[in-house]
Amino acid sequence: MIKAGIVGATGYTGVELLRLLASHPEVQVSIITSRAQQSQPVTDVYPSLRGHYDGLLFSDPDPSKLSQCDVVFFATPHGVAHQMVPSLVKSQALLIDLSADFRLKDPVLWSEWYAQPHGCPELLDSVVYGLAEVNRRAMRQAKIIACPGCYPTAAQLGLLPVLAHDLVDPQSITINAVSGVSGAGRQASIGALLPEASDSTKAYGVSGHRHLPEIEQGLRAVQPEGATPVSATFVPHLVPMIRGIHATIYATIKEDADWQALYETYYQDEPFVDVLPAGICPETRSVKGTNICRVSVLQPQERDTLVVLSAIDNLTKGSSGQAIQAMNIALGLPEDTGLQQVALMP
Amino acid sequence: MIKAGIVGATGYTGVELLRLLASHPEVQVSIITSRAQQSQPVTDVYPSLRGHYDGLLFSDPDPSKLSQCDVVFFATPHGVAHQMVPSLVKSQALLIDLSADFRLKDPVLWSEWYAQPHGCPELLDSVVYGLAEVNRRAMRQAKIIACPGCYPTAAQLGLLPVLAHDLVDPQSITINAVSGVSGAGRQASIGALLPEASDSTKAYGVSGHRHLPEIEQGLRAVQPEGATPVSATFVPHLVPMIRGIHATIYATIKEDADWQALYETYYQDEPFVDVLPAGICPETRSVKGTNICRVSVLQPQERDTLVVLSAIDNLTKGSSGQAIQAMNIALGLPEDTGLQQVALMP
Amino acid sequence: MIKAGIVGATGYTGVELLRLLASHPEVQVSIITSRAQQSQPVTDVYPSLRGHYDGLLFSDPDPSKLSQCDVVFFATPHGVAHQMVPSLVKSQALLIDLSADFRLKDPVLWSEWYAQPHGCPELLDSVVYGLAEVNRRAMRQAKIIACPGCYPTAAQLGLLPVLAHDLVDPQSITINAVSGVSGAGRQASIGALLPEASDSTKAYGVSGHRHLPEIEQGLRAVQPEGATPVSATFVPHLVPMIRGIHATIYATIKEDADWQALYETYYQDEPFVDVLPAGICPETRSVKGTNICRVSVLQPQERDTLVVLSAIDNLTKGSSGQAIQAMNIALGLPEDTGLQQVALMP
Amino acid sequence: MIKAGIVGATGYTGVELLRLLASHPEVQVSIITSRAQQSQPVTDVYPSLRGHYDGLLFSDPDPSKLSQCDVVFFATPHGVAHQMVPSLVKSQALLIDLSADFRLKDPVLWSEWYAQPHGCPELLDSVVYGLAEVNRRAMRQAKIIACPGCYPTAAQLGLLPVLAHDLVDPQSITINAVSGVSGAGRQASIGALLPEASDSTKAYGVSGHRHLPEIEQGLRAVQPEGATPVSATFVPHLVPMIRGIHATIYATIKEDADWQALYETYYQDEPFVDVLPAGICPETRSVKGTNICRVSVLQPQERDTLVVLSAIDNLTKGSSGQAIQAMNIALGLPEDTGLQQVALMP
Repeated sequence: MIKAGIVGATGYTGVELLRLLASHPEVQVSIITSRAQQSQPVTDVYPSLRGHYDGLLFSDPDPSKLSQCDVVFFATPHGVAHQMVPSLVKSQALLIDLSADFRLKDPVLWSEWYAQPHGCPELLDSVVYGLAEVNRRAMRQAKIIACPGCYPTAAQLGLLPVLAHDLVDPQSITINAVSGVSGAGRQASIGALLPEASDSTKAYGVSGHRHLPEIEQGLRAVQPEGATPVSATFVPHLVPMIRGIHATIYATIKEDADWQALYETYYQDEPFVDVLPAGICPETRSVKGTNICRVSVLQPQERDTLVVLSAIDNLTKGSSGQAIQAMNIALGLPEDTGLQQVALMP
Repeated sequence: MIKAGIVGATGYTGVELLRLLASHPEVQVSIITSRAQQSQPVTDVYPSLRGHYDGLLFSDPDPSKLSQCDVVFFATPHGVAHQMVPSLVKSQALLIDLSADFRLKDPVLWSEWYAQPHGCPELLDSVVYGLAEVNRRAMRQAKIIACPGCYPTAAQLGLLPVLAHDLVDPQSITINAVSGVSGAGRQASIGALLPEASDSTKAYGVSGHRHLPEIEQGLRAVQPEGATPVSATFVPHLVPMIRGIHATIYATIKEDADWQALYETYYQDEPFVDVLPAGICPETRSVKGTNICRVSVLQPQERDTLVVLSAIDNLTKGSSGQAIQAMNIALGLPEDTGLQQVALMP
Repeated sequence: MIKAGIVGATGYTGVELLRLLASHPEVQVSIITSRAQQSQPVTDVYPSLRGHYDGLLFSDPDPSKLSQCDVVFFATPHGVAHQMVPSLVKSQALLIDLSADFRLKDPVLWSEWYAQPHGCPELLDSVVYGLAEVNRRAMRQAKIIACPGCYPTAAQLGLLPVLAHDLVDPQSITINAVSGVSGAGRQASIGALLPEASDSTKAYGVSGHRHLPEIEQGLRAVQPEGATPVSATFVPHLVPMIRGIHATIYATIKEDADWQALYETYYQDEPFVDVLPAGICPETRSVKGTNICRVSVLQPQERDTLVVLSAIDNLTKGSSGQAIQAMNIALGLPEDTGLQQVALMP
Repeated sequence: MIKAGIVGATGYTGVELLRLLASHPEVQVSIITSRAQQSQPVTDVYPSLRGHYDGLLFSDPDPSKLSQCDVVFFATPHGVAHQMVPSLVKSQALLIDLSADFRLKDPVLWSEWYAQPHGCPELLDSVVYGLAEVNRRAMRQAKIIACPGCYPTAAQLGLLPVLAHDLVDPQSITINAVSGVSGAGRQASIGALLPEASDSTKAYGVSGHRHLPEIEQGLRAVQPEGATPVSATFVPHLVPMIRGIHATIYATIKEDADWQALYETYYQDEPFVDVLPAGICPETRSVKGTNICRVSVLQPQERDTLVVLSAIDNLTKGSSGQAIQAMNIALGLPEDTGLQQVALMP
């Protein structure tokens, strides 16, 4: 059995890792850390896990113990992985960071967007960005994997086929995305209270959201050489859902194509990207709790704007599911091991 | 007292008219019609109205009785007003149509989008499109007023200032809008069931929504002469709210401006358009049950895409509230009479 | 105009007072206090109030200024009114406490349930419990009014007729109530986050909720002399609503009666209690944003258990609306002044 | 592999069977029937199943084909199983009815509550009521299993320990239950629309709900000989959840006991009943999508009313999960095969 450790397991990405790993046949969770909940049984904090992790207690994060794991997941606020990864990088453990710490290749850009110095620039070269649909090969050899953000996952999976083939104007890209409230994390905040966030919609981070540079970096990486680098407008919104991200992506068509065929071909071997039949639009609930991204592509009224719809569960494909997918790849397991959940419906 | 009749009062726009008119000091609702609910007390169908309309019964729509009203509202499915307006146009009654029947000036375009012949092209010339922020003067003399659709209201109020001043590329406009489920009307349908529509988001009508030609017609009407006519991409979405529309509008900037000042100036005398302070984004809940449209304008990262956010209540400013605003204007009342509700918060 | 002050205006009961007073024709809000938000415009904290309170700033609570008001509302956490009421009791101002500070007549009982000493026992004799349906006469002369809690309002209005007539076993009473999440107040807490409280139901405070002694005190006050004092089981629940309380009350019948007639007669002159027609059950949405309590009474299958259903808006009739009703009574205004809102539907 | 057929697979219990069976290692779904959707791929109706049932089409229900299955589930409206079971009872197939057709032992009582004649009284003696916690032994030999209703499952599991030991007054029982809207099935109805059912609570069926006789029948079956037969008051409510039932059960204590120990002991070997630690109350979300019933027992303030809280997912333990549990038992598989889902959290 693969021994897994989870650092910062009390947040939503942590408990989602626990939910998914409970049905992973090859993994045993042996360490979960939380400074705040130290010594408490995980099932006290998450009664939904009763019967699956009885006896497992939160512990203080201890590098010497974590280093004995085969895989360590960081489900921590940004900045923490910067501190802890260096002490573990020489251990046997595969390190998978679900936070934003290693997503941006440029430490200066990182420090601009995260308003603090980059805590670990020296390891950036050895980090692989964990979007399997782009970097699967590199992930197989990776020691440190940076899991993509939730919005960047939905946005990139929606845009890869057209940007890789240079079929849309890279400077015309608009990403309008909505997220469920769990995207804000499990922190007490007035704005995320049910009486505040329920029955309402609002945009936020319009003037600049931290996922924008990650989206642009990821999309530029698949553009053919010589193409004008992607420049995107990205507006995230909060809608009254628990989970789910729905991205509606607009781009000006440079060159016509059979969009449906393009997308189906591009993703034909991908286990976790589902191109819907022509004319069908994805609902976020159809991926709830699963590692699937469902995608549709349309050209409304044959005008020159392409519309791509992309739906994921922010906590699964957008975070913890994708992390387990990355682990499966890096550890040589079948990629979908433990990731075959069917969405709750209704 | 102004005597009002409401044709088709059992739907959501009908009951919203009743809610608003209950506190309108100058109006008495004397006739409400519904074929299906004939002879039933309105308070049986809508217990929320108990104490406000006790004794009022639904009746069969009877033109001779309706013609004695001072104002008749059509809160009917499309096609019905086409049938009934001709019989009332010679009466004393002001006719206000909340349906789509008279919104498009071009009957051919109408019949293309609504998949049936236009039932009343001969009266189109005498119809005024009831967006007060554009047509207030004409509305004062109107006999027939066509109330704007919900999405077109949010979209136009978001775009009027920049299109009137020709500051953005009229062919670059993208309108990404989300609506609460009440926008689908009070008809039994599986897609609008709580277990289907709750905790999920989806786009719909992507290949072409009936509100698109109305939006383009309305926006073109305010463009300066000689400008390239507006061409828009419009994608509506369903989110788990009861009420509310939030439009996020993207346009390529042609000419720089002080956007905040532009919007504040443009709308400074408008009673129902509230330009938020710079940096504040509207939430739909802040207009719930009110006739207000709250608008924000931003230029993210000083790039060349303008982002406008526009929030309304689809049943109030997006429908019944706007209809009463139109009535106030046409009948010479202060425009905000009966429309000073404060949004429920939380 | 009546000059009103609101102490602690940033919470949900405070903003609800502001919403309701905005359409009260006889009241002007002149002071709103908040230590935390001092000097901030109320419309910055609550954009929903834009256009209604422009220019009004939160200020530090200052007894000398508050004492110049005609009415002062305490929308504060418990303990605060105990501190401030003594300094205002000699002023001209009517004092209306929406907190729990003065609800219980017995200071020892109060300190047991609130786990702190009662801060103001000396004024308890001059306090009138503000349930108009019981104490209207005394409220007309009151200087200090203690507004009933939300659950106690729903429970008492459901039970008054049968207890006043001694028709059910006073020791058999079970009150099963559900509340919207706004009942927890506007404090950041993990349990009230949308991702935690949405799409779920739970009981809380089962072993003893602070509203139980208030319910028992209130019900005992209307029992005929010599009756066995009421003893109730009360279990509150949290359900995914913003607002609303629904109480389902069970009692063993001692003596048969025409329950429908009993309730209709008992409440026939009450402006804010609506006994529904036989067989109709109340929905909380039918009272959303209104000061109405809707009540139904049933005797399922002619067995010996009476079932009473009682629905209120926890923030309106359950708090701020009832406070304004109390003010109207104490200041000699028509009782429903400013309280004629129609519920949002849908 | 066990060959399974599902009659009426388009409703919520049908699609829940499909979701659960997709991860059942011993079962292959070979037939799904639906008159309305005949010949349509199941993944067209339920995109959430894409990748799990590709190629499976709805077919017309054909007894000759169904009789070749090892197990046939009826996920049909009541009345249908009455018609079809007789034609299949001589086949090899285990028959599991999720509808109400065979739940009541007394066909006269059935026809009173369902307002139609019982269509199959001759088979009632060979039906086993599928509550494993009571009838596990009989279920092992069963040919026809009647799955308990959702409310009766929650109610019985809450009450079995105290009634089996005769510790509460059997005539004092009050069951106050709330259900998510999926309990109303996947039929278009105005009352279940999101704009109607969201942000509101209401009781329904107060004068008599069809689950009451089933609850009383089930509870009486576990009472010791000579005990006064159970008589219960049952009031169901609709709350704005997709899934979930929460029952709050009240009973007058006859004899004191260590309630926590009683419940823990009673259910110690039950794989799907989880007695929570003392003082912890169940949330419905903690069982979402799982076959678990979580139970708490409390004696508030040491008074003489016992309060039991019981939470299930109405579509899983309350329906399709319990049906698969029944199949596992009857076919000799480990009882929890395919039923080890972890609840989505959040």
